[in-house]
Amino acid sequence: MKPYRLHIFICQGKRCDARGSEEVLDEFKARIKGKFDDVRVSRTGCVKVCKETETEGEYSPVVVVYPRGVWYRNVAKGDVREIVERHVRGGEVVERLLHFDANFC
Amino acid sequence: MKPYRLHIFICQGKRCDARGSEEVLDEFKARIKGKFDDVRVSRTGCVKVCKETETEGEYSPVVVVYPRGVWYRNVAKGDVREIVERHVRGGEVVERLLHFDANFC
Repeated sequence: MKPYRLHIFICQGKRCDARGSEEVLDEFKARIKGKFDDVRVSRTGCVKVCKETETEGEYSPVVVVYPRGVWYRNVAKGDVREIVERHVRGGEVVERLLHFDANFC
Repeated sequence: MKPYRLHIFICQGKRCDARGSEEVLDEFKARIKGKFDDVRVSRTGCVKVCKETETEGEYSPVVVVYPRGVWYRNVAKGDVREIVERHVRGGEVVERLLHFDANFC
């Protein structure tokens, strides 16, 4: 196989789902598929960021980008274009949506 | 948040599912949860390895470990213990199950 340069996971846990993660996933697919051959978009189960606050779901929907380990929070459909243009195309982390940057590589 | 040292994704696409990926997921959770606080196990949608051969599903079930980007194929419930002991605990790739090692970091 050819490795993906980026693998983007969109959380579809129940709290992310209740806050629109399905349309975030669809928007990523629409903007990535056929345009960036080296990027893969996948749905994932709960990644537990929703449990980090007393009000569960406060940070939902959550998006994780590997291999660097960039965690975005409160990502709405309308934010996807910016993540794709600045992060996927430009290699720049979108600070205003950043929850955590593991900065693995 | 505290970053996970490893994030293990178990594909639950339809071909992986037909070949037992749900029990692979359950086995990973049973062997990781409460034992490795710095490792997260998540289900994921199809990661497309099943499409790399003429006979679709030949490589299913598929497991991906980030941030390094290690792709395992044909992972059965009985293989999980070895992946956990050798890779998660020992930091060693299990060559006999390896599909692709992106070696990102």
